[in-house]
Amino acid sequence: MCQGFKAAGMAAGIKKNGNKDLGLIVSEVPAAVAAVFTKNKVQAAPVLLDKERCKTGKCQAIIVNSGNANCCTGPQGMADAIEMSRLAAAGLSLSENLVCVASTGVIGQALPVAKIESAFPELARSLSEDGFSDFAEAIMTTDTKPKIVSRKAAVSGKTFTVTGIAKGAGMICPDMATMLCFVCTDIAADSAALQPMLQKAVDLSFNRITIDGDTSTNDTVLVLANGISGISMNQSGAQEKFQKCLDEILVELAKMVVRDGEGATKLVEVIVRGAVSASDAKKIAYTVANSNLFKTALFGEDANWGRILAAAGRSGASLDPQKVDIFFNDIRMVKDGLWCGAEAEKNATRVLKTPEFNITVDLKLGAGEASYWTCDFSIDYVKINADYRS
Amino acid sequence: MCQGFKAAGMAAGIKKNGNKDLGLIVSEVPAAVAAVFTKNKVQAAPVLLDKERCKTGKCQAIIVNSGNANCCTGPQGMADAIEMSRLAAAGLSLSENLVCVASTGVIGQALPVAKIESAFPELARSLSEDGFSDFAEAIMTTDTKPKIVSRKAAVSGKTFTVTGIAKGAGMICPDMATMLCFVCTDIAADSAALQPMLQKAVDLSFNRITIDGDTSTNDTVLVLANGISGISMNQSGAQEKFQKCLDEILVELAKMVVRDGEGATKLVEVIVRGAVSASDAKKIAYTVANSNLFKTALFGEDANWGRILAAAGRSGASLDPQKVDIFFNDIRMVKDGLWCGAEAEKNATRVLKTPEFNITVDLKLGAGEASYWTCDFSIDYVKINADYRS
Repeated sequence: MCQGFKAAGMAAGIKKNGNKDLGLIVSEVPAAVAAVFTKNKVQAAPVLLDKERCKTGKCQAIIVNSGNANCCTGPQGMADAIEMSRLAAAGLSLSENLVCVASTGVIGQALPVAKIESAFPELARSLSEDGFSDFAEAIMTTDTKPKIVSRKAAVSGKTFTVTGIAKGAGMICPDMATMLCFVCTDIAADSAALQPMLQKAVDLSFNRITIDGDTSTNDTVLVLANGISGISMNQSGAQEKFQKCLDEILVELAKMVVRDGEGATKLVEVIVRGAVSASDAKKIAYTVANSNLFKTALFGEDANWGRILAAAGRSGASLDPQKVDIFFNDIRMVKDGLWCGAEAEKNATRVLKTPEFNITVDLKLGAGEASYWTCDFSIDYVKINADYRS
Repeated sequence: MCQGFKAAGMAAGIKKNGNKDLGLIVSEVPAAVAAVFTKNKVQAAPVLLDKERCKTGKCQAIIVNSGNANCCTGPQGMADAIEMSRLAAAGLSLSENLVCVASTGVIGQALPVAKIESAFPELARSLSEDGFSDFAEAIMTTDTKPKIVSRKAAVSGKTFTVTGIAKGAGMICPDMATMLCFVCTDIAADSAALQPMLQKAVDLSFNRITIDGDTSTNDTVLVLANGISGISMNQSGAQEKFQKCLDEILVELAKMVVRDGEGATKLVEVIVRGAVSASDAKKIAYTVANSNLFKTALFGEDANWGRILAAAGRSGASLDPQKVDIFFNDIRMVKDGLWCGAEAEKNATRVLKTPEFNITVDLKLGAGEASYWTCDFSIDYVKINADYRS
């Protein structure tokens, strides 16, 4: 995949079902790092540790486990996160400060560090340039599919690569919608330049998806740039091309996360335009995309525009109900707040039967625009989440 | 029930299933009125009409239909709401200004006024002091039970009565959680005195419940006070006693609404204490009570405290995860942010198997308190709401 990066993934016995649950990414040389973490005030030990580690601007290895979130585990949890990074650093002969850690899974249970210790030598031995798909599997919890997206771009006759791996599928084993994403690139960049580029890409992607409105204690996005391609971010055109790759990768991964949402059968983009401001547009798009009534109607393939309008109305944003238009793809179902009739409903219902479509709410008040990706809310979502720990 | 009030309910053919769908309450004399309406910016025609009517401070009759919300119906919807009030006024020989109107049901379809017109003479004929249970049935949509609560109190040797009737069960036929509540009392009061008393009772009751986080376009609470008991609100002790009755009735009705929540199997009070402020406590209680992850765990009878803590953490309120205690009834499951062990979990799980219990989150930061009633989130909720219109 990406020059100068190796990865691995294996089963260390953390997950009860014996699936892969321990992953490792290593760069040949220390890489510049940028990071975005959960805004939840309850933060897992690995998040707290990585925040400190990333302050140095450098990272060379990431060790990740699934099956246990190492969250709400108190001082022992922090000691365990540090021990996990120490094991990786020792096994790879790196400075401990160059190792980041991530965990996802059950909350409130002690991390089985001994299992990680036993497994690590084999994990390190299996590191390879082709190990990314094993890594992607090792970080899955309720995900049904591994999620990897890669892009290449050329600058002055040389090529750089950007590879992103993500996990997330709604709430996780069994506690929440943990979303982890790791991006490797062989372009050269410094941490300070990388950080705003990552923030921009996250705002376009992971900050525009919702499965169940719950924000994890463990959400982490890390970008490692090791410079092995010989291309520098400072070369003419490099920054634009890298940003484009990063944006595309994160948007694609974000959509893969929603498509793989727990119990989800549909990927729906909720687009709001014509709002008084972008912030008002965002309020409405977010409220509609999170409405249980709207999401259950999606599952039922019911073009229930009343629920869309009602959610918009309670979002806190300015709107005039008698001006609103609502579209399902290009089918206008509501014009000036009124139903467009049986023919429009029939066509909109046809759109709803497809697996991916968009819904546009046009307020006709201003130039504010925003959009979110969401999924439907199914019987399987409840089944998956009701009985997880039993 | 209440002196000087009669009620009736019948099937007028608005609901497809032939159930009762038209209700009427009439006072012998014009009554003082107080009202609270939905804060949704999309408001149904009857809500807009009642807001105008209530400005006079007087109301003598309320006509209510279920099966159609008369919402998002444009100018025709307002004309239909006015016509519905005109029919009632004419049939009862009252001034049209003394009639309030409420509707609940499908959004965006024209109100079948002709059916109301045909049915009205029979409805008026069947008015009786014992008609409140028919009325309560006539305003139901996805409710499984009618909801009536009555209280009496004595002042200076005379007795006054307060009777409340409510409907609401999550989202409604098929669009949202319409909550309607009508309170009749034979105490004498003026509208200006009644309004803050109603607002206080609503803040204690309907503003502290959530089934699915969606706010209806049609929510309406009306209180009619006709004075027939001969007791005045100005008499010594009357105001306190009336407020107590009103509070108790609305709290009881609110709990009945949650208990009857679509697909609900449990009524759970989420109590937050020890917050920095009451507003912080409210943020946390509301976020937990609305979390799909938390609510699906309730359905699964899983004492999933991690989801509670994670929801608290994303609420925006101040908290220190290492100080938080969590109780299921009186069982402490989490102390200082850490799990209390297998014995506590076993006892908490026993609590979760009961139909009604409370969960307390103690932040140990200050004196802020708040609570919400919520229900679990079941497979039936999704079934009820996915396929409603088909």
